[in-house]
Amino acid sequence: MSEMTKDITAMCSAAKAAARQLAGIDDENRSAALVAAARRMRAETGRIIAENEADLAAGREAGLSTALMDRLRLDGPRIEAMAAGVETVAALDDPLAGTLEQWRTEAGLEIARTPIPIGVVAIIYESRPNVTADAASLCIKSGNAVLLKGGKEAIGSNSVIADLFIEELDAAGLPAHTAQLVRSVEREATHVMLAQDELIDLIIPRGGPGLVRAIAEHSRIPVIKHYEGVCHTYVDSSADLGMAADIAFNAKVQRPGVCNAMENLLVHEDAATAFLPLISERLIAAGVELRGCERTRELLPETAAANEEDWTAEYLDLILAVKVVDSLDSAIDFINTHGSGHSDCIVASDEQRAGRFLAAVDSAVVFENASTRFNDGYEFGFGAEVGISTNRLHARGPMGLRELTTYKYVVRGQGQVR
Amino acid sequence: MSEMTKDITAMCSAAKAAARQLAGIDDENRSAALVAAARRMRAETGRIIAENEADLAAGREAGLSTALMDRLRLDGPRIEAMAAGVETVAALDDPLAGTLEQWRTEAGLEIARTPIPIGVVAIIYESRPNVTADAASLCIKSGNAVLLKGGKEAIGSNSVIADLFIEELDAAGLPAHTAQLVRSVEREATHVMLAQDELIDLIIPRGGPGLVRAIAEHSRIPVIKHYEGVCHTYVDSSADLGMAADIAFNAKVQRPGVCNAMENLLVHEDAATAFLPLISERLIAAGVELRGCERTRELLPETAAANEEDWTAEYLDLILAVKVVDSLDSAIDFINTHGSGHSDCIVASDEQRAGRFLAAVDSAVVFENASTRFNDGYEFGFGAEVGISTNRLHARGPMGLRELTTYKYVVRGQGQVR
Repeated sequence: MSEMTKDITAMCSAAKAAARQLAGIDDENRSAALVAAARRMRAETGRIIAENEADLAAGREAGLSTALMDRLRLDGPRIEAMAAGVETVAALDDPLAGTLEQWRTEAGLEIARTPIPIGVVAIIYESRPNVTADAASLCIKSGNAVLLKGGKEAIGSNSVIADLFIEELDAAGLPAHTAQLVRSVEREATHVMLAQDELIDLIIPRGGPGLVRAIAEHSRIPVIKHYEGVCHTYVDSSADLGMAADIAFNAKVQRPGVCNAMENLLVHEDAATAFLPLISERLIAAGVELRGCERTRELLPETAAANEEDWTAEYLDLILAVKVVDSLDSAIDFINTHGSGHSDCIVASDEQRAGRFLAAVDSAVVFENASTRFNDGYEFGFGAEVGISTNRLHARGPMGLRELTTYKYVVRGQGQVR
Repeated sequence: MSEMTKDITAMCSAAKAAARQLAGIDDENRSAALVAAARRMRAETGRIIAENEADLAAGREAGLSTALMDRLRLDGPRIEAMAAGVETVAALDDPLAGTLEQWRTEAGLEIARTPIPIGVVAIIYESRPNVTADAASLCIKSGNAVLLKGGKEAIGSNSVIADLFIEELDAAGLPAHTAQLVRSVEREATHVMLAQDELIDLIIPRGGPGLVRAIAEHSRIPVIKHYEGVCHTYVDSSADLGMAADIAFNAKVQRPGVCNAMENLLVHEDAATAFLPLISERLIAAGVELRGCERTRELLPETAAANEEDWTAEYLDLILAVKVVDSLDSAIDFINTHGSGHSDCIVASDEQRAGRFLAAVDSAVVFENASTRFNDGYEFGFGAEVGISTNRLHARGPMGLRELTTYKYVVRGQGQVR
């Protein structure tokens, strides 16, 4: 066993032990530790910026892209936002409070299904150093021990943030090793972690689809994936076309680079003649490039032809594929075949048709008359967001603190035997 | 791609299509189809027995063990029990009815978290042909399409059961390919299935730890594991010793070959002198072999010495490891270290001490003053049992129909945009 494998295995064992002890620490103490960590980060803004500048200098030397450099950069406002984010998480309701359900069995047993932390959660992320504080606070608030492994570009920034955080957790009396940063930046270190299925309970990758896919393929531990969103807006024959235009425009243009932005617009043939000129004018004015099916191009002759790849592409950009469909069922089939099961919307005034769409479209979040951009933990009212899961099981759609918990059954008897 | 790979991939695609259509079939129709299938199996008892006899003859030839031959055997009463089991599942409440929770967001969106089927569930099992009907009925009742792959010893029995079942599903108007039996008996066929992560949503192995482990190691699809139960009964210093003896005796002796039977008995040192002679007499009279720690052997000199492996062994037999512990915390640590997180019990009359145990023991089901044998879907009142999961996520402990469902969010707006 290499030194690195030994080190990481020891960290995982320590995390497991911490997780067991954390089960006995109440929300007040967990939250107070987070508040202290936030205060400390704010107080040491200068030190964080200095370490971040070293990462940035190395990044410049290594020729990192502008986008990557921007993600890596911390400044006063970003550090303030990071600290405020930790305080927001600390102030949320305890996700471990109460009982999920309880009942009495025929034998007279009192059964309570009780929320508990998942245990040890590993967060594997890329170049954004704010994820260090963000992920740590979400995991600790929900009673989990956390292993953090960030990208090598951000190792200096991540180290100083983790050091400050951990010092405050220790000072507040949380178990040693509640949060740990994996400082080996080799890819091999990730593989060692992904094999620790006895010690790590859940892996959450935070980053692009390349990272997520690589982790999902190699992991023996459950992974909560946040894959692409190939999201649709379907404008039904019964739609209020003004509302449809507002929703489609918002879903595409308000923030095109995120997973809940629309990539495909479907229009019922009975609505196409009136709707397509209306929406295309607004979209083109906003700089959106349209790629259309044959029938779209008959109505909008300037539009480029969409090819097969366009229907499954996650552009994350001001590009939109547009298709005229001959029925509600065609729209449903198209979405179930080409979509990614993330967020899909029907605009309709006919409740029965909308109901059919909502039942049949097999996506994490289905919308009637609202923008797909609302698939978001904050918009859902969760107060925090771990991400938007594309898993079918455990956590589906926007993930809040609750999705960082699992449950156990507590059964109380008076001597019952079978 | 080999013919077999092609065939299995085609079956998985057909299952996916069936799952989408099943989403539109209501509980009344799903349940009626199951009732028809049960009636048909009962009517064709003779044909099932004939096919089963062919499997048994081949098994005798191949030199199968007595235990395996017994699991393989079907007779009138067993077929009747199988049919009655399908009817029981059909009569349960619809696991897809209603809404898990609903709320209104600040933006005025109505959000409903709605139960839906998981999609395509593959059940991989060994030599018990009754699993064919049992697993099919649980999956279909919960709206899932099901792929069944049984052991090669039972291929004739499984085929006839599946044929009858599928004919009745078709006659009742359920989508084609709602249930399918994988007739390739090669191990390679399982590997092909385990790689279909785009088409199969969940794998449930039903069989011994060897099967479960092999599947968990090779699967790219989520697996619900049913691993071993190394279950404990801890007799606290505050225990009513009569109650403790009844519970421990029941947990060990009532059905020693199952996963929720006790394997380790822990006794607080203050209770050991009075309790150990009492329980050992009853256990020995029932044919139980005891293996004890040093302190146990001081009190029960006839007892063999337990070694390290005994503390983590799942005997599934009339063998019990016994240990005297010096405190409640020692018992908790011992269980968290040596147990399998399945079912663990404290016998205590001190509520505070019991509460500490229930909170700190990291197991799927923790019991106060009741036998671990109650970790069971029927005893919990679920009306059916898919198995007892040792996963931490999605399904933990006894799995009923609900654990064969997941959820989606249905969001209704009136034109909201961000």
